[in-house]
Amino acid sequence: MSIFWSPLVKDLTPYIPGEQPKHNNLIKLNTNENPYGPSPKVVEALKREAGDTLRLYPDPDAFLLKTALARYYALSTDQVYVGNGSDEVLAQAFLALLKHPQPILFPDITYSFYPSFCKLFQVAYKTIPLNDAFELCIGDYAKSNGGIIFPNPNAPTGRLLPLASIEELLRQNTVSAVIIDEAYVDFGGSSSATLINKYPNLLVIQTFSKSRSLAGLRVGFAIGQASLIEALERVKNSYNSYPLDRFALAGAVAAVEDMHHFEQTRNKIIRTREELVKGLRTLGFNVIPSAANFLFVRHPERDAAHLFQQLRDRLIIVRHFRQPRIENYLRISIGTDEECATLVDALRGILREPVRMN
Amino acid sequence: MSIFWSPLVKDLTPYIPGEQPKHNNLIKLNTNENPYGPSPKVVEALKREAGDTLRLYPDPDAFLLKTALARYYALSTDQVYVGNGSDEVLAQAFLALLKHPQPILFPDITYSFYPSFCKLFQVAYKTIPLNDAFELCIGDYAKSNGGIIFPNPNAPTGRLLPLASIEELLRQNTVSAVIIDEAYVDFGGSSSATLINKYPNLLVIQTFSKSRSLAGLRVGFAIGQASLIEALERVKNSYNSYPLDRFALAGAVAAVEDMHHFEQTRNKIIRTREELVKGLRTLGFNVIPSAANFLFVRHPERDAAHLFQQLRDRLIIVRHFRQPRIENYLRISIGTDEECATLVDALRGILREPVRMN
Repeated sequence: MSIFWSPLVKDLTPYIPGEQPKHNNLIKLNTNENPYGPSPKVVEALKREAGDTLRLYPDPDAFLLKTALARYYALSTDQVYVGNGSDEVLAQAFLALLKHPQPILFPDITYSFYPSFCKLFQVAYKTIPLNDAFELCIGDYAKSNGGIIFPNPNAPTGRLLPLASIEELLRQNTVSAVIIDEAYVDFGGSSSATLINKYPNLLVIQTFSKSRSLAGLRVGFAIGQASLIEALERVKNSYNSYPLDRFALAGAVAAVEDMHHFEQTRNKIIRTREELVKGLRTLGFNVIPSAANFLFVRHPERDAAHLFQQLRDRLIIVRHFRQPRIENYLRISIGTDEECATLVDALRGILREPVRMN
Repeated sequence: MSIFWSPLVKDLTPYIPGEQPKHNNLIKLNTNENPYGPSPKVVEALKREAGDTLRLYPDPDAFLLKTALARYYALSTDQVYVGNGSDEVLAQAFLALLKHPQPILFPDITYSFYPSFCKLFQVAYKTIPLNDAFELCIGDYAKSNGGIIFPNPNAPTGRLLPLASIEELLRQNTVSAVIIDEAYVDFGGSSSATLINKYPNLLVIQTFSKSRSLAGLRVGFAIGQASLIEALERVKNSYNSYPLDRFALAGAVAAVEDMHHFEQTRNKIIRTREELVKGLRTLGFNVIPSAANFLFVRHPERDAAHLFQQLRDRLIIVRHFRQPRIENYLRISIGTDEECATLVDALRGILREPVRMN
């Protein structure tokens, strides 16, 4: 700490992202990346950007990308916002739509970045406990609030709320923003995008990092009615005029347009997930039903921190959160069929060993 | 405006960036881009990034880029911070180091994004008038403050403060952060980077958008003692873990390492600037001495808004700020020799015409 720090910065509790190991001899199932590369059409579009035009600023309004997304979701371009990954879009939404005198509401078990945004932007919040099966109950959100936000499917549980429940929430909560963070929705959910023209307080946030295989490119977006989008644009234009570089803009457009690659890889991941569920259940794991590209699991007889380390010793990294209610769970990203088979074999070997005491 | 907006967002006055025209039949001298493309080694490095590894997150700590910059400035990696363009780095510095109960100080004529950051993050500020020659006088900053920030060379004037004056300021102001925004320093100034190990409150911010020809890639950085950098890291990790994508990281490393291309293009731009100064003075313009890749000029007999429009009609765009004290100036980015010669010819033609009244 230093006397030059703002009082605010002294109080922050920054988010800790999953490990990004420097060496690639590991099976990396810890940050929900896509096991398959992006579309070859994306790669071609990106190669075309490497040239002299990099001396020029990118389009600050991201017109072509907004147009591609608007077409995809049957919306207009003024209903689309883009940012430097969905984390930036979320951060800006906290400032633009969730910073009110009333506390906002989100689940006790959810994306662990939300409390960091709240601290940074001094947004008051209350957490609402999921039930014992880690389900989100709409009725629990029927109280006055400054806004509501949660991922659907939820993170790190993978549990999906059906569209009918989202709509029930929107009918129940009409005076503050409802933000649905759909980072994982393409792996088994229905997007709330179809509800946008009906509910003026609904903002849907998505990312290119998961189902579009572009975590390395940093593109996220929000869709909602034009007045919500305008609030985000006002924040963006008070922060950074050009958050998306020329690669991000060109690659994201090509990704939206290649439906075939998207469907093919997404479906492969869903099939692998269902196989992995079976494999883990056979080994005695409790597996939370998942609509995401990861599973949230625990073994009734084994300590999760210990399992995490035993997998690490075998060069497989998964994610373990030291947090109340979920400290005995592991979050496992869906890799290729081969990676998941290796994981199951490793766990089988570990479970055959006698339980060691820490 | 909408009931879902935060009270904060209603009060914002977003920054307006210079026009980025969709068509390229214009001579674009309005946003201080480099007229020469990036180093061929940068282009090669960027092409190598277009591939399957884009499915993986980039390094959130930007280790290789911090190492390259640390080596370049003879600092350690914990004295380097990187972000999504220098605007993001500036925004985060306002939050991390300038948000104090006391108002911060910056010149009345300066980078017009600063007041937008202040509004967004509710940072109190006072502007200190430049003198009539648009010079910044260190003595004017000898008052209690929450921090001091200005560009050097200043924008949009191009005027440089010598290193000795910066050091005088640092000796005078020891209890709050002093941030020197060096977006343009490579075109004629000496970087305050050499003062970093002597002054714990000095933060220097630079960009790859100007002298490195990478406006399209969005990379900025800050250098300062480790405790200042830590404040920025805390903000970053409460906002967005991965602000630099794989292209930005790889391209910026290659740019720092190609000293030859950097020196060659920078020197060309300086020579063109000196020619343009002569050409404009011959036409009767007052030209503020510039250490940047732009000139700030006025013609004693012509209205700047009118000249701006007459150039626009001839497909040349420059920048005009409708702002007290400088509404009769034009800011002209340094283009190629050919572009600058075309500009001078166009102005000569315009000045031969009788003055039209608006």
